[in-house]
Amino acid sequence: MVENGVTFINVIELPAGEVDAFVEQWRERAKLMRDAPGFRDSRLHRAKLPDARFQLVNVAHWDSAEAWRAATTNPAFQAAMGDVPGSVAPNPALYDVVVEYGQP
Amino acid sequence: MVENGVTFINVIELPAGEVDAFVEQWRERAKLMRDAPGFRDSRLHRAKLPDARFQLVNVAHWDSAEAWRAATTNPAFQAAMGDVPGSVAPNPALYDVVVEYGQP
Repeated sequence: MVENGVTFINVIELPAGEVDAFVEQWRERAKLMRDAPGFRDSRLHRAKLPDARFQLVNVAHWDSAEAWRAATTNPAFQAAMGDVPGSVAPNPALYDVVVEYGQP
Repeated sequence: MVENGVTFINVIELPAGEVDAFVEQWRERAKLMRDAPGFRDSRLHRAKLPDARFQLVNVAHWDSAEAWRAATTNPAFQAAMGDVPGSVAPNPALYDVVVEYGQP
């Protein structure tokens, strides 16, 4: 289990033709999160096939929901989010691990 | 990065009232995957809030796409999948890690 922590998952819907550009924007924007207190790790996953419904999924771990919330409401991060085009539909939420097999 | 491996993500849509029962079914069904060659680990995530669009997200790691494919086409697993109610909409796909910060 993720001890004393929380998992943030963002399932991102966007046109296949916009994935490359979005990944590069994400790479820069995520640095603001990386440097925030309570950040543990983050992985942006890209679907192997271009016809997968969800082309990008971010899975990140934070020390607490409060730390994640503070980072997302940071004005610098909010300003960076203004660059996300309207064609991108994020689905961000906090999750608990309810079943685990093996050791990641 | 996930060395020489592949990430499987299943974004699951289902009514909030069916989550508890589905998790228990999943816990048993996933044991068939856990015992398959090439399996590394699997985590079923449940949204902290009942109004999150995607209540469940499975993130698993396998040695290869071939190992994952062989496990999913196993007759015992296929038979177990027959128990999934029609109200559950899975979105399974294979992913690569394209950006990573921190060390999970």
